[in-house]
Amino acid sequence: MSGSSFGTQFRLSTFGESHGVAVGVVVDGCPAGLPLMVEEIQHDLDRRRVGQSRMSSARQEGDRVRILSGIFEDHTTGTPIAMLVENENARPGDYDAIKELYRPGHADWTWDAKFGRRDWRGGGRASARETIGRVAAGAIARKLLATAGISVVGYTLQLMHLRARVIDETEIERNPMRCPDPEVAAEMVALVEQARRELDSLGGIVEVRARGVPPGLGEPVFDKLEADLAKALLSIPAVKGFEIGDGFAVATKRGSENNDPIYRRPDGTLGTTTNHAGGILGGMSNGEEIVVRVAAKPPASIAQEQQTVSRSGEAASIVVKGRHDPTVLPRLVPVAEAMVLLVLADHWLRQRGARA
Amino acid sequence: MSGSSFGTQFRLSTFGESHGVAVGVVVDGCPAGLPLMVEEIQHDLDRRRVGQSRMSSARQEGDRVRILSGIFEDHTTGTPIAMLVENENARPGDYDAIKELYRPGHADWTWDAKFGRRDWRGGGRASARETIGRVAAGAIARKLLATAGISVVGYTLQLMHLRARVIDETEIERNPMRCPDPEVAAEMVALVEQARRELDSLGGIVEVRARGVPPGLGEPVFDKLEADLAKALLSIPAVKGFEIGDGFAVATKRGSENNDPIYRRPDGTLGTTTNHAGGILGGMSNGEEIVVRVAAKPPASIAQEQQTVSRSGEAASIVVKGRHDPTVLPRLVPVAEAMVLLVLADHWLRQRGARA
Amino acid sequence: MSGSSFGTQFRLSTFGESHGVAVGVVVDGCPAGLPLMVEEIQHDLDRRRVGQSRMSSARQEGDRVRILSGIFEDHTTGTPIAMLVENENARPGDYDAIKELYRPGHADWTWDAKFGRRDWRGGGRASARETIGRVAAGAIARKLLATAGISVVGYTLQLMHLRARVIDETEIERNPMRCPDPEVAAEMVALVEQARRELDSLGGIVEVRARGVPPGLGEPVFDKLEADLAKALLSIPAVKGFEIGDGFAVATKRGSENNDPIYRRPDGTLGTTTNHAGGILGGMSNGEEIVVRVAAKPPASIAQEQQTVSRSGEAASIVVKGRHDPTVLPRLVPVAEAMVLLVLADHWLRQRGARA
Amino acid sequence: MSGSSFGTQFRLSTFGESHGVAVGVVVDGCPAGLPLMVEEIQHDLDRRRVGQSRMSSARQEGDRVRILSGIFEDHTTGTPIAMLVENENARPGDYDAIKELYRPGHADWTWDAKFGRRDWRGGGRASARETIGRVAAGAIARKLLATAGISVVGYTLQLMHLRARVIDETEIERNPMRCPDPEVAAEMVALVEQARRELDSLGGIVEVRARGVPPGLGEPVFDKLEADLAKALLSIPAVKGFEIGDGFAVATKRGSENNDPIYRRPDGTLGTTTNHAGGILGGMSNGEEIVVRVAAKPPASIAQEQQTVSRSGEAASIVVKGRHDPTVLPRLVPVAEAMVLLVLADHWLRQRGARA
Repeated sequence: MSGSSFGTQFRLSTFGESHGVAVGVVVDGCPAGLPLMVEEIQHDLDRRRVGQSRMSSARQEGDRVRILSGIFEDHTTGTPIAMLVENENARPGDYDAIKELYRPGHADWTWDAKFGRRDWRGGGRASARETIGRVAAGAIARKLLATAGISVVGYTLQLMHLRARVIDETEIERNPMRCPDPEVAAEMVALVEQARRELDSLGGIVEVRARGVPPGLGEPVFDKLEADLAKALLSIPAVKGFEIGDGFAVATKRGSENNDPIYRRPDGTLGTTTNHAGGILGGMSNGEEIVVRVAAKPPASIAQEQQTVSRSGEAASIVVKGRHDPTVLPRLVPVAEAMVLLVLADHWLRQRGARA
Repeated sequence: MSGSSFGTQFRLSTFGESHGVAVGVVVDGCPAGLPLMVEEIQHDLDRRRVGQSRMSSARQEGDRVRILSGIFEDHTTGTPIAMLVENENARPGDYDAIKELYRPGHADWTWDAKFGRRDWRGGGRASARETIGRVAAGAIARKLLATAGISVVGYTLQLMHLRARVIDETEIERNPMRCPDPEVAAEMVALVEQARRELDSLGGIVEVRARGVPPGLGEPVFDKLEADLAKALLSIPAVKGFEIGDGFAVATKRGSENNDPIYRRPDGTLGTTTNHAGGILGGMSNGEEIVVRVAAKPPASIAQEQQTVSRSGEAASIVVKGRHDPTVLPRLVPVAEAMVLLVLADHWLRQRGARA
Repeated sequence: MSGSSFGTQFRLSTFGESHGVAVGVVVDGCPAGLPLMVEEIQHDLDRRRVGQSRMSSARQEGDRVRILSGIFEDHTTGTPIAMLVENENARPGDYDAIKELYRPGHADWTWDAKFGRRDWRGGGRASARETIGRVAAGAIARKLLATAGISVVGYTLQLMHLRARVIDETEIERNPMRCPDPEVAAEMVALVEQARRELDSLGGIVEVRARGVPPGLGEPVFDKLEADLAKALLSIPAVKGFEIGDGFAVATKRGSENNDPIYRRPDGTLGTTTNHAGGILGGMSNGEEIVVRVAAKPPASIAQEQQTVSRSGEAASIVVKGRHDPTVLPRLVPVAEAMVLLVLADHWLRQRGARA
Repeated sequence: MSGSSFGTQFRLSTFGESHGVAVGVVVDGCPAGLPLMVEEIQHDLDRRRVGQSRMSSARQEGDRVRILSGIFEDHTTGTPIAMLVENENARPGDYDAIKELYRPGHADWTWDAKFGRRDWRGGGRASARETIGRVAAGAIARKLLATAGISVVGYTLQLMHLRARVIDETEIERNPMRCPDPEVAAEMVALVEQARRELDSLGGIVEVRARGVPPGLGEPVFDKLEADLAKALLSIPAVKGFEIGDGFAVATKRGSENNDPIYRRPDGTLGTTTNHAGGILGGMSNGEEIVVRVAAKPPASIAQEQQTVSRSGEAASIVVKGRHDPTVLPRLVPVAEAMVLLVLADHWLRQRGARA
């Protein structure tokens, strides 16, 4: 059954394989009348693109997005917005050698188990290139939410044992790790370089914050805001864990220290003096900053010899060559932001139906 | 917009408030011909029920489920299965005192922000009683999955700093904490008793394992199996974090240690020699055990004085009285199992459409 | 897969079999703050109920509805509204004789073909009793739409060759046929009596009109307002055809006579001087009256001998006994109204997302 | 809210405006392993294309479809199949003159009412070009259903007062009207030529038949097979009515003549000796031929002077120029076939979940 769509009112459907003709997305449900220029989409795509630095793989592509529909006279029309990025630099030949071998940590095997066949070129649809559509759609969500004063920012919080000690958001786009702590960022870069030399890869944590979210977004039962955020973020390749607010730290906390006291701000709105909850109570935003974190595994593609089997079931060893990132973190940041933006845009629209 | 339904093919819709007439659920999409007795539903409900021990609150209710439809001659008919539990022991008077005060850590405030009104009696629909419908539906999913050899078991892995050192599943239902380590279980019980005396509450971690899941369940992009599990589990009240496999521990791991080597079993199926991935690769099950964990916050209802505001915005202090659990863990276990079962049943049915 | 839910934002799920424990409905997505009394639901249910006159079958039931959730202090709370009608007068014994024989014109056979089993008591879920949930949900939609000045009225337009010549809506509830032409209504009653004596049944046409619908409701492509109305009305048992505006009459018309000229009303809104289109253009309402018609087949249950086969495939003859209507028309009226109301309520809420 | 998707398991999403960059479709949920060549898609698109004869408008476009994803080594992979047709021959200038005037019978007005703006070039998304995506998706459904022995054929049954007297399906593609009666087809052609000279347009009826549909497809309540067919067909521009089987003729029939007697075929399957029902009972197919009809209005675009108003509300007269069909019937045939195919493919997949 179809599983390439996300969202209920602000809904995107992505398509495309890594080394096929193109990857793209259709966004349906964006309200009419939103000013939108292709450059705004491209800006976020450029942040996601590979080849920006030594931190990421050497594949060079323009990833120029083309808007096919849904925009007229620089405004959304309320109809589906289709966006396309052609695969200019596809080199299927890179992957011929591993066509028959299942790469450890990859979905080659489960893909065959599910469908009985797969497009093995560059991971096919399991490739990170699929996230291009998410980021393009997220850029529209960003524009839409900006009209409501909502903004989202993400960054690399941790790489292996290195964790940002200060959060200076102005630093994020200034270093290749997208780490808000310039000092730690430098250490991270050195660690990545070392891993690259050692033909290995590294795990880490990305944090995303949403500000200006009005109280009341999210639904109280299954479609809790944190539940939809968790699904959104776990749907990103390589993500293995999700936290909101204090997250797993609550496991060792008492109610008396975890509850956030409520107060009234001078402007009459309510707030909490602490934010252990991470901006959501009972599935609905409370107006405080929404803070989520995801754990990203070290990329599975490493040029070390690993044990595996072939499609036909023979034991084999494999060395995964090709253009691969030693860490996904810097590129995960814009993708994670996009997924948070998409969830918020959806619930922001859903909220319009809350009251008679 | 409606947010009280979950699942695509195996789909449940819950309804009901804590102190209203009844709580219940409608399950639509369960295939016809599944043998099903009301006792099988009741069994899982009894595990969820309050009043089982000192670990949980003192509210005493039978929570007897009645099947209203969808079953004929002890088999499912393919039509919606509606199940109802009347609220026998509702005491709205318990909550009159806090009708006007927002309880810290609760959704009272966000509920008003969203809908402009709420059923304040006992938390209304934000009450844990809503999960009765989930557990009832989960019991049907359990029966359905058993026909495919799939089983699910959950337990309390950790309470505060106390973590099970051995996993002996035969112990789980033998102690009030549902902890698989009898020795640690005893320590947990003591800690809960102490917290109760101190008018405080405790956080912890529940782990759920699914066995016999065939390779290929789950969809490769947005509806990844781990993504749907994350949403399912984060939709449970009090859950603040989700992990699959090694979870957040991957943040400090290298690819060379995190990748699970693949081998061929004597029966010809494939397996991995380790299971860091937790049974899912690229959104689809690989046939290994699926292992997930959730972090549960300490219950927000504590009988200590806390700072808050009233509905009208006045600063106030509040002491939350009533029948409350010092820890949700033992009762979270069957609810978490139910949500995992529901996700697996849904994807097990979805898989029928994977191949032409 | 589940197919007992309808609507996207204003969404209902019905459950229950004719001779099971109860029939009911859950409405999810109704906005909070709508004043709602159980009497308002009961009023529409009473119009649907059997036993009102000689026109319909002799089964006598109170069909008293109970609201289980979603209402607090006489207002909707934004949570699911579950409503239940117990089956007080179930007499499964009536149907024992035909348990093994497929009734011509009924779904007994296709039900077995689909599910491999069925609840054969009184048609099970194929019974018209399933529409109780629709009418109950429709009553809520009616209340919601009234806040926007939208109203819906239906009536029997035609029974066999007898067609209303005048449409006097004040007459509708005054005669047992719900025909707006009192003179023709009397002829219809006589024809029904004759059919009853002849052990036969009669077909006809119901017309439904919606007024006060603002321009712009409906979606331009698949979810056209007329498309959703067509689905809604064809989902009612016995309906075999649907028309909007001039309907099938357009097949013999020229563009020059079918196009509705547009003009500006004194209040500045736009209108058409004729209404061949039936109030919808390109899937969206234009502010004119929405007019739809459905053709209802003569009820399949007739006490005449008919040729059929048994479940085991033996040729047999059958005489369908029991409590059956010689025409569905009077009872179809409130059900058709309900389905139109449900579609309009859904699109009225959807419209909130149309503009940025 | 999004309304450009159709289907639950076999699901398509169309996008694109008449004079924008391109029109296209994404099909999600097609099972893996189906052999599929682009020529098979193109074949159905060519049948839909304009410029085939004097019966349709003079716009000349190749409408060459490009498959962007989801196909690998000439088989479906189970991932979304995106298909694109560029708008080669767009001439926005044709429509400048009517940019400010609302065309009677068109959606210009309701579009503005809904969204506050519209792409006015050639009808934008309200153009019949939107149906390209439906036909492309329908071609895949046709291929999928062929694996189950299901086939669908449509034809022009009636143009104005001219109705086919014989149904010879081998004639359908031999005449420009797609009428199965060659003699009547010739009369129809003459009538169309006359209408063209008179600057007028003509209404008619298209009939579609589905064969080989196994018993049991369709869901018993809201998602009845006939209900989904009705929605599917009413979602096509210009369609104003829908019938299944005897359709509106049942309004004047008695049960004793309308019920189809059931018998057992020599091969053990069940059938009916007549087919008044049109192949569906209670929402589910019974194995007999499925027969549906739709009424199509005369195209609204006529080069006669008509009364209307401008966007700013001024009374005006309009003569709609451009490339327009005097009848939609021949081109409606492949679109109606496509919609029937899409519904059947969806329910054929849904049926996989019917039994445990």
